[in-house]
Amino acid sequence: MCKKILIINGPNLDMLSIREPEIYGTMSLDDINSNIKVYAEGLNFQCDFFQSNSEGAIIDKIHSVLTDYDGCAINAGAYTHYSYAIFDAIKSVEKPFVEVHMSNVHKREEFRHKSVISAACVGVIAGFGINSYFLAINALNELVK
Amino acid sequence: MCKKILIINGPNLDMLSIREPEIYGTMSLDDINSNIKVYAEGLNFQCDFFQSNSEGAIIDKIHSVLTDYDGCAINAGAYTHYSYAIFDAIKSVEKPFVEVHMSNVHKREEFRHKSVISAACVGVIAGFGINSYFLAINALNELVK
Amino acid sequence: MCKKILIINGPNLDMLSIREPEIYGTMSLDDINSNIKVYAEGLNFQCDFFQSNSEGAIIDKIHSVLTDYDGCAINAGAYTHYSYAIFDAIKSVEKPFVEVHMSNVHKREEFRHKSVISAACVGVIAGFGINSYFLAINALNELVK
Amino acid sequence: MCKKILIINGPNLDMLSIREPEIYGTMSLDDINSNIKVYAEGLNFQCDFFQSNSEGAIIDKIHSVLTDYDGCAINAGAYTHYSYAIFDAIKSVEKPFVEVHMSNVHKREEFRHKSVISAACVGVIAGFGINSYFLAINALNELVK
Amino acid sequence: MCKKILIINGPNLDMLSIREPEIYGTMSLDDINSNIKVYAEGLNFQCDFFQSNSEGAIIDKIHSVLTDYDGCAINAGAYTHYSYAIFDAIKSVEKPFVEVHMSNVHKREEFRHKSVISAACVGVIAGFGINSYFLAINALNELVK
Amino acid sequence: MCKKILIINGPNLDMLSIREPEIYGTMSLDDINSNIKVYAEGLNFQCDFFQSNSEGAIIDKIHSVLTDYDGCAINAGAYTHYSYAIFDAIKSVEKPFVEVHMSNVHKREEFRHKSVISAACVGVIAGFGINSYFLAINALNELVK
Amino acid sequence: MCKKILIINGPNLDMLSIREPEIYGTMSLDDINSNIKVYAEGLNFQCDFFQSNSEGAIIDKIHSVLTDYDGCAINAGAYTHYSYAIFDAIKSVEKPFVEVHMSNVHKREEFRHKSVISAACVGVIAGFGINSYFLAINALNELVK
Amino acid sequence: MCKKILIINGPNLDMLSIREPEIYGTMSLDDINSNIKVYAEGLNFQCDFFQSNSEGAIIDKIHSVLTDYDGCAINAGAYTHYSYAIFDAIKSVEKPFVEVHMSNVHKREEFRHKSVISAACVGVIAGFGINSYFLAINALNELVK
Amino acid sequence: MCKKILIINGPNLDMLSIREPEIYGTMSLDDINSNIKVYAEGLNFQCDFFQSNSEGAIIDKIHSVLTDYDGCAINAGAYTHYSYAIFDAIKSVEKPFVEVHMSNVHKREEFRHKSVISAACVGVIAGFGINSYFLAINALNELVK
Amino acid sequence: MCKKILIINGPNLDMLSIREPEIYGTMSLDDINSNIKVYAEGLNFQCDFFQSNSEGAIIDKIHSVLTDYDGCAINAGAYTHYSYAIFDAIKSVEKPFVEVHMSNVHKREEFRHKSVISAACVGVIAGFGINSYFLAINALNELVK
Amino acid sequence: MCKKILIINGPNLDMLSIREPEIYGTMSLDDINSNIKVYAEGLNFQCDFFQSNSEGAIIDKIHSVLTDYDGCAINAGAYTHYSYAIFDAIKSVEKPFVEVHMSNVHKREEFRHKSVISAACVGVIAGFGINSYFLAINALNELVK
Amino acid sequence: MCKKILIINGPNLDMLSIREPEIYGTMSLDDINSNIKVYAEGLNFQCDFFQSNSEGAIIDKIHSVLTDYDGCAINAGAYTHYSYAIFDAIKSVEKPFVEVHMSNVHKREEFRHKSVISAACVGVIAGFGINSYFLAINALNELVK
Repeated sequence: MCKKILIINGPNLDMLSIREPEIYGTMSLDDINSNIKVYAEGLNFQCDFFQSNSEGAIIDKIHSVLTDYDGCAINAGAYTHYSYAIFDAIKSVEKPFVEVHMSNVHKREEFRHKSVISAACVGVIAGFGINSYFLAINALNELVK
Repeated sequence: MCKKILIINGPNLDMLSIREPEIYGTMSLDDINSNIKVYAEGLNFQCDFFQSNSEGAIIDKIHSVLTDYDGCAINAGAYTHYSYAIFDAIKSVEKPFVEVHMSNVHKREEFRHKSVISAACVGVIAGFGINSYFLAINALNELVK
Repeated sequence: MCKKILIINGPNLDMLSIREPEIYGTMSLDDINSNIKVYAEGLNFQCDFFQSNSEGAIIDKIHSVLTDYDGCAINAGAYTHYSYAIFDAIKSVEKPFVEVHMSNVHKREEFRHKSVISAACVGVIAGFGINSYFLAINALNELVK
Repeated sequence: MCKKILIINGPNLDMLSIREPEIYGTMSLDDINSNIKVYAEGLNFQCDFFQSNSEGAIIDKIHSVLTDYDGCAINAGAYTHYSYAIFDAIKSVEKPFVEVHMSNVHKREEFRHKSVISAACVGVIAGFGINSYFLAINALNELVK
Repeated sequence: MCKKILIINGPNLDMLSIREPEIYGTMSLDDINSNIKVYAEGLNFQCDFFQSNSEGAIIDKIHSVLTDYDGCAINAGAYTHYSYAIFDAIKSVEKPFVEVHMSNVHKREEFRHKSVISAACVGVIAGFGINSYFLAINALNELVK
Repeated sequence: MCKKILIINGPNLDMLSIREPEIYGTMSLDDINSNIKVYAEGLNFQCDFFQSNSEGAIIDKIHSVLTDYDGCAINAGAYTHYSYAIFDAIKSVEKPFVEVHMSNVHKREEFRHKSVISAACVGVIAGFGINSYFLAINALNELVK
Repeated sequence: MCKKILIINGPNLDMLSIREPEIYGTMSLDDINSNIKVYAEGLNFQCDFFQSNSEGAIIDKIHSVLTDYDGCAINAGAYTHYSYAIFDAIKSVEKPFVEVHMSNVHKREEFRHKSVISAACVGVIAGFGINSYFLAINALNELVK
Repeated sequence: MCKKILIINGPNLDMLSIREPEIYGTMSLDDINSNIKVYAEGLNFQCDFFQSNSEGAIIDKIHSVLTDYDGCAINAGAYTHYSYAIFDAIKSVEKPFVEVHMSNVHKREEFRHKSVISAACVGVIAGFGINSYFLAINALNELVK
Repeated sequence: MCKKILIINGPNLDMLSIREPEIYGTMSLDDINSNIKVYAEGLNFQCDFFQSNSEGAIIDKIHSVLTDYDGCAINAGAYTHYSYAIFDAIKSVEKPFVEVHMSNVHKREEFRHKSVISAACVGVIAGFGINSYFLAINALNELVK
Repeated sequence: MCKKILIINGPNLDMLSIREPEIYGTMSLDDINSNIKVYAEGLNFQCDFFQSNSEGAIIDKIHSVLTDYDGCAINAGAYTHYSYAIFDAIKSVEKPFVEVHMSNVHKREEFRHKSVISAACVGVIAGFGINSYFLAINALNELVK
Repeated sequence: MCKKILIINGPNLDMLSIREPEIYGTMSLDDINSNIKVYAEGLNFQCDFFQSNSEGAIIDKIHSVLTDYDGCAINAGAYTHYSYAIFDAIKSVEKPFVEVHMSNVHKREEFRHKSVISAACVGVIAGFGINSYFLAINALNELVK
Repeated sequence: MCKKILIINGPNLDMLSIREPEIYGTMSLDDINSNIKVYAEGLNFQCDFFQSNSEGAIIDKIHSVLTDYDGCAINAGAYTHYSYAIFDAIKSVEKPFVEVHMSNVHKREEFRHKSVISAACVGVIAGFGINSYFLAINALNELVK
């Protein structure tokens, strides 16, 4: 039976292809998700997608991982840098989470250099554009075994 | 006529009994609320319960205290440590609020040592597990006289 | 054809006239909005209003400026001081935003002295009570030409 | 057989009713202690009182809790904010300690926002005037069971 | 009888049109002042102008507002960021002062993010180029009524 | 009837003439006190002296100023830099206190640059050797009128 | 032959009696200087007065102390807190300087708690209103012997 | 023709299987390298390995990437956290570098939370044990196309 | 004639064998002192012991070293980290002091990483359990020659 | 035709030979300027000198470099460490400026370790006494070509 | 069979007797090592010596302790204050390390007050000149038992 | 007889002409050294060159200055900003060292604004490209007289 994973995208990632394309590229989130779906299925994963600009909705969804998924890749957008509530949410769920960023946050504004959620995740992948998601799925492939 | 109080629980407290039981114990939030209800009624309080993972929903509910309740006990979870919006919400309502924490936040991660909402509340009770809520109701009993 | 602008008010501004009237005055948000509407129409602006206590809902609305408005005046309330997600939202929309505050934030608590969204806006207007909104509309008048 | 608890008051609490009555109220420490005694006896506690302005004397008394008491409520006054020696003293005694403050320290000077002894106590109760002591005894009642 | 206001420009604003035109535009200070004069007269204001690179001369001029003017718009240039003496000068004069900046200081170097004079002014207007001055006069129009 | 003042000297001031004579001079505390006594009597003051190395004993003595003295000059030695308990003690007594230092603390180690008790005193006199005490008595002469 | 001293007053002290009288009292600088003159002559001092809002002019005047005066009392106003140039000026002149403040700077805004010129002076006197100047002259009396 | 990549391991990684096996696992660096080799060859990469405890030797090797390799995965060990010289070395070579860590550095000591080399790399992969290297090779596979 | 040294133990060291035995071991202070006595006599030292929880009493005892001892080993417990008064006391006595800690303070809480008394002592010995005292006596043996 | 350069000296440099000769040497500023003149003429430079203790006057003079000089060497004295107004002034003039210090500022007080004007200059020369000026002229010789 | 220990000296300790003899004394490192050898043999230790200015070489040598020695005394010179790589190296070797300093680092420059390697060692000995090494060997004598 | 000087270049300066040519120019280190050699010989200096990426090797070479050279110009590259070991090395050699940087470090990343080696050198020259070296030799010319 195939494993199920969840891809969570946080605030403003619905603006991909519109928002600062020199940083995030010109693919829309839907385009990216289609690509991820194909890639995930190639690894025999069933793959759901969730995007929200609401911290609370993201936390609700993280909780659902406990019962509905084998693992999760999360790009929490700007919430990465101050949402201790998301940190707590991930810690409350004993499933593997992988933190993902398309851009290399360390090359950008000071406030993006610190993640408050990393310590709740298994690991971090940042800076490889859409490929960051593929690598995260790859990582989950190993983790959910 | 009996007084009415509100118990607000913030992000991830819906995960009680699941999340880090070595810190938060094995009772679910519903179990806890049932116990609180009984305790409150013993002090002749009518007692409502509200839990949300959304900062905005918590603020909306705080505003309702102005017209619907005599006082409020609030465990704002991780929002305690950065939600100046909740601080403002409490200040905008001239009813007594008591800040509650089940765990002793000062024994845990650095970020939990600072509360940005304490200065808007009458007082703080932290570290006594479910008993923290009972003590808060006790405190409100005196404050709403 | 007349231009269209949006006025966004963030957390706790729905409590105006109730919350700390010595700082914010005794007009309700509806009263203020009515006044703004008249003022804006005098400058030949069509003017919509949005208030929410939810960071996510505010971000959603900011995104709508891209397609539905020529500019936006935003008073993000306490989110001004920590919502990097709102900063990102404004940056993702290439329309002029003006940051507005009724009170002079620099005369108040330390945490209000720093805005994390200013750098995403064209400019800032703070300290003139309801007049701050009129000045912002005035500024937008020039910016959307 | 009834349990025995100790109430420790630190520096300047002997000046209650004299010192800043707008913060601490107009009851003297003796008045307060009489009230506490009655309240404690209602919970079947035997209750001793100790006040000193000397850090060393407070430490000596804390040590005595090991052999002479079942628990302790401690209001360490200004020592709360820098006496790591008192922190060590409490940690050296394996009996439950409850940190108490009459005022809400978070509404006052910056230096009072940090307690260096909280992490050695079971929990903290602050902001309820004389009622803070009653709540602490209530808390101890549960802890010494 | 018409009201009298003063426009103070601080260090290096005499270099406008020469200094970093990509930030400050290509109009000279004289050109700007002429435009402001016309605008102010339209609001029935008499308007004087003062520019100096000397902190002391600016302080002297601020003092003159007490007896000679109904209000003042001040762009203190780099002194904005460290001149507590100008802060004191404004506080010593009980007339409305509006802090003005042509550029959005929050988009520039770190040191420009903090103003030490804001707390002495009624409010702040920043980021709208020459229009910042017009908005300030507009604000003064309301304040000197 | 003549006024009564108290001179408090804190930790290590009993080592004067022994401790770092290049900073504190070669007079013993007794010699200094004799001189102060003569000087105080010249201003028609009765003058008591107290020295202790114990923070608690100093606090006890400060409390006695309330009932026994018209004012107090206090050189709290190193406690000046961290004893918030002494700060509280002085604040609890509504009599004029003058902070005194023989050496110019600002020329010495970093830790001596900050006094935590200044804000509880009327004023500070530092750097004039034994003359600092004479000046303090002079200041008290004006304050106790 | 009588000694000659200089009294320097820095920025905004020309606004005495106008500026924040609840802090600085209702005497004008001229009134104060007249009183100081009388007091100084009683100690057989010839006494000159200088006030300027200009950092540069104050530095020039400080340099003149080398050849024209036996000592100097300086109230550098807000420059006290950031003018390292005045610090250097005082250090370049080998005559005794006494730092004076009428208000107790430690009871006021954070930025006033640090003086950058203290370490260049013999000592500091702060908090005694006009009496601060008399005490400084008293101190100079001893220093210029 | 197949691409050539370099795997650099910094200080103490030669101690793998010996050093803190609860963090780093029980495989030796040679074991790991063998696994990486196989994995890399599967992606048609030729793969060289370099380990050194010397900052200088690592810099020398980084320089060699310019002429000898198509890309590089680097685990700089503790140098990650302070070697600005390695940061400069990577920046001086216009080939893709991927920063790798076996452990999740954000779960460990404070000093490991900041990397000074991230901003010189394309991206970062941390927390997946030996799999971190496989993911990095995967990332390089995309980058060297 | 044999030399005389003093061993000072500060707050909570009277709780040895009771307090955190996993850090401090299971020997009582009396046991330790007996061992030290024997060891010291082996080096022909006469050896006195002093323990107090009072900062003031410790300072008094330090002063006595000037006249009564040839050197001193001091374990100031938690006072090590904030007692500038003890720092001053040691500096006022021109005899060799050796700072001693049984535990390796650098492996423990952040606040224990900084000693404010080290700079007044000849040197520091920390981390060797009871052996720390023996090494200190050894060091004194060299210093008092 | 020969090039024209300006040498600006800031506050207290008129006190050279008087002020701390162990740091600045025994030559007066006039002596130094004479030497510089000779040296500059040897490189075929015409050389003007300006010294002022006034920040404003220095800024005025810096502005004059735009039209009257080919380059400038500036020793801004203590203003180096806080005058962002001088930083702005230099940036507003597109001619080469060289920052000069006679002493090695990094060997002196902490506040002298940071220059706020360096980033507006081409480069910095510090620590070579009068030779610093010669080296600066040498540097300008290359820059004004 | 006798135990084997290693003495590691880090950067610039090869300059002993040449470098700042007022701090480090006039013995060369060879002289010191000869003395240590004799002392160690007296305790029945075989003793090797290693000095290097290279961080990498020191790390290599530390690794050798695992297989070749029973314990190690290490004076890491300036690396003490920033080499997290040496910290890691010591932690990777489960043999007792003693940190040694000849000078009392707490009496010297600020940067020497913090050691990043202490937490990896058993304990620290600092301030006793060459005797620091003897004491360290003494400590090792106990530790390697 | 001609004097001998050493030019030390630290990490990554072997990448000149390759590394960030917009900052460092297009000349290789060999080209630069040839130019320096000619320039130095013009001042009758014999001139040796040393480049290394190894901190240890640089320290070794610095030590050699004591016996083999009259002075040294050192561009320590990124080690400038954290190598206290190089600071110590320079201090251990009583010959004049001049700190050199080709770029103006104050215009670049924050971490380059602080040099930890300046205080060990006679002076600093930064920002003049290859000319920085010529100026340093010029400075040494004066220093080695």
